[in-house]
Amino acid sequence: MNSAVIVAAGSSRRMGPGTDKLFLEVNGLPLVAHTWRRFDASSRIDEIVLVIRSGLEKAFLEIAERIRPGKPYRLVVGGAERQESVWNGLNAVDPRCRIVAIQDGARACTSEAVIVSTIARAVEMGAAVAAQRVTDTLKESDGENRIQRTVDRTHLWAVQTPQVFRIEVIRKALQSVREKGLSITDDTAACESIGQPVALVESRDPNPKATAPGDLPFIASLLGSEGDA
Amino acid sequence: MNSAVIVAAGSSRRMGPGTDKLFLEVNGLPLVAHTWRRFDASSRIDEIVLVIRSGLEKAFLEIAERIRPGKPYRLVVGGAERQESVWNGLNAVDPRCRIVAIQDGARACTSEAVIVSTIARAVEMGAAVAAQRVTDTLKESDGENRIQRTVDRTHLWAVQTPQVFRIEVIRKALQSVREKGLSITDDTAACESIGQPVALVESRDPNPKATAPGDLPFIASLLGSEGDA
Repeated sequence: MNSAVIVAAGSSRRMGPGTDKLFLEVNGLPLVAHTWRRFDASSRIDEIVLVIRSGLEKAFLEIAERIRPGKPYRLVVGGAERQESVWNGLNAVDPRCRIVAIQDGARACTSEAVIVSTIARAVEMGAAVAAQRVTDTLKESDGENRIQRTVDRTHLWAVQTPQVFRIEVIRKALQSVREKGLSITDDTAACESIGQPVALVESRDPNPKATAPGDLPFIASLLGSEGDA
Repeated sequence: MNSAVIVAAGSSRRMGPGTDKLFLEVNGLPLVAHTWRRFDASSRIDEIVLVIRSGLEKAFLEIAERIRPGKPYRLVVGGAERQESVWNGLNAVDPRCRIVAIQDGARACTSEAVIVSTIARAVEMGAAVAAQRVTDTLKESDGENRIQRTVDRTHLWAVQTPQVFRIEVIRKALQSVREKGLSITDDTAACESIGQPVALVESRDPNPKATAPGDLPFIASLLGSEGDA
């Protein structure tokens, strides 16, 4: 059994005060509804756990009424940090869950191909993450906004989501991070900290995360004309 | 006197065969026409040199008829490599030119604020480049698509254009690169090779370069409703 944990408990600081980016309307639906739909429609996902902010239960139930998900879902409340939210999500998956796909709620365009291939690699290796090769020219600064050197990007990847794990792998990795009191920004870093290999799975289609209102037209164009259900 | 050199001689490999991304229509004009317009409208630019592919002179003259630029412009033919094209562009600027802003033809959304601030920093330091702080989570692979380590992005910047220089600085830097037979992918790297400091100027607004057809809706939304002139 494969579960998706959609992390939708962020505070959207970059979007400006009072704005929850997950609820910005894109093609007739809140952004996070598109994310939910992608995983609900996936041939490889059996259930969905949505990690949300306290007080937003009603808003997510309203989304469910609009998109009418075909797969079982559960709402759980997240923590102050992403890491805490993921932990709460893992505690809410079905006991039969073997593989868990952790997804940013604001990453609404993830393709079925990426879900399928990250899950396949996680089954083999224990952990896998969608990623894109770095194509920008990168410079390291001297700390005072002057170029120090050009960075060799040959082996550099930008990681995205889904980040997919065998359930016992991510539980062990996050447990270790908690015991050491570390703060991590992505779940593969927890694997790195216990020496668990993580496969990079190339995401060839754009798989952007909304971080500023200016990202929405691009996301809308990628989502195409799905519209409201 | 400040000159803009717009490099519009690329072969657009990532766009697929037979497609010149610079001529894809965005909001009623070819992409490169928007780039041209931004520099033609800038309060800090006095003339524009367009470095183009051989045989496309007529196409650029047609663009000029449509946008009716207010500033003098010149068309020069580029070389096989970007470096060669920039060199040809530098050889075509007005003899009174003191500052040159080198711009990707496919980067159509560069703001006046970025043009003004990169020129100001280049006057002070000799060289300056528009850049954005890296916000993606970066991983270095082991060369076989497994994560080796998380990359510290604290001092990492993705450089864009304009790349702005005192004319004698970039001439000296590129001359040195040519003599050494080096191949560079951006003009600030030529400065690095001769120890010339380059200022990183934060571009806060999106300043994307079109590299694939999927980028165009985002660019169109940034360009807003400028439309055809």
